[in-house]
Amino acid sequence: MSQPLLRVLGVDPGLTRCGIGVIEGLPGSPLRLISVGVIKTPSEDPLEQRLLRLERELTTWVEENKPDRIAVERVFSQHNVRTVMGTGQAAGIALLVAARAGIPVVMHTPSEVKAAVTGSGRANKVQVAEMVKRLLSLSEIPKPVDSTDALALAICHIWRGGGNNKIATALAAEKSRLAKLVRK
Amino acid sequence: MSQPLLRVLGVDPGLTRCGIGVIEGLPGSPLRLISVGVIKTPSEDPLEQRLLRLERELTTWVEENKPDRIAVERVFSQHNVRTVMGTGQAAGIALLVAARAGIPVVMHTPSEVKAAVTGSGRANKVQVAEMVKRLLSLSEIPKPVDSTDALALAICHIWRGGGNNKIATALAAEKSRLAKLVRK
Repeated sequence: MSQPLLRVLGVDPGLTRCGIGVIEGLPGSPLRLISVGVIKTPSEDPLEQRLLRLERELTTWVEENKPDRIAVERVFSQHNVRTVMGTGQAAGIALLVAARAGIPVVMHTPSEVKAAVTGSGRANKVQVAEMVKRLLSLSEIPKPVDSTDALALAICHIWRGGGNNKIATALAAEKSRLAKLVRK
Repeated sequence: MSQPLLRVLGVDPGLTRCGIGVIEGLPGSPLRLISVGVIKTPSEDPLEQRLLRLERELTTWVEENKPDRIAVERVFSQHNVRTVMGTGQAAGIALLVAARAGIPVVMHTPSEVKAAVTGSGRANKVQVAEMVKRLLSLSEIPKPVDSTDALALAICHIWRGGGNNKIATALAAEKSRLAKLVRK
C-alpha cells in the first residue's frame, strides 16, 4: 500500500503581494509543482477592501486546488511596524480561510523554511529560489519571484509532516553557531 | 425633515476579549445605548479557530444590530509585540466582516477616541468609562468593562461624522502642550 500524496498550499502573506504555491509530494519522494501565483491588492484601496479581496481570491485558490494542508509563513513584528501589521492581517485572513474550509493549517517561521530547503536557517532569497527550482525539478526558477517563498514553505511543510529531522538539525546547528558568536 | 439617527457598532479589537458597543444618535442629540458585549475566544485554541470564531460572532452582531457604520480601533505596534499581532489580526477580521456586509467602516486611534469623549487625548480608562456613562445617560458604567472602549469609539464616530470639531480642538491643544514640554 502506497502512502497517498500530500497536497500543500503555501501562503507567503502580504497585502500588496501575497505569494501562493501549491505542491504535491511525500517526504523522500519527488515533489511536483501544481500551481503558483500571486494575489495582488491595490495599495490605494481602503484596507477593508484589500482584506476582502484577499479573502475571496484565497478562497478561490483553495477551492480550485483542494489542498490537504495549508502552510502560512509566521509573521514577526521586529521589522517595519507599518508593513508588519498588513502582513499580519493578511496572514490572519489566510488562517481564517483555512479554518473555514476545515483544512488543517500550520505556520512555519522563515528560518524553518530556509533550513528545510537549503539546510541553513540563514540562506538568502536566491539560494532559496535555486533550491526550490531543483527540488521541484524545474528548468528555471518559478515566476513570479514572490511565489518562490510560498513554494519553499509548502516544501518545508511536506518534509516536516514526514517527520524529517533535517530542519531540526539545521536549526540546532544555527543555534550553536550563534551561541558561540555570543560567547566570543 | 429630521435627520435619521445613525447606528454605530464599535469594535475594540482583541483575540482574548473583543469589546463590542452599539449606540444610536446624532451629533448634538442625546445618544442611546443599543447593545453591549464582549466576544471571547479561548487562548488555548489554535489561532485559526479563534479567528474563525471571532468572524462568526462578529457577523452575528452585525446581522442582529444592523449598524449603519462600523468603527474599529486602530491598532499600533509600539506595545507588546506578541499581543499586538493578535489584536491587529482581530481588527483585520472586523474590517473584513464590515466590508463583506457592505457597511462603511472607519478606524479611529485611541487618542482620537479619548479626545472625543473626554476632551483630552490622554484621558485614562476610568475617565473614559465615566464619560461614556454620562453621555449615554446610564445610571452606572456599562458592563463588561471591556465594552466601554467600544462604546467610546462608537460615540467618537457619531461625533466625527457630524463634523464636530471637538476632537480636532482637543488634539491640537494636546499637540501644542507636548510641543511646549519638548521645548522646555
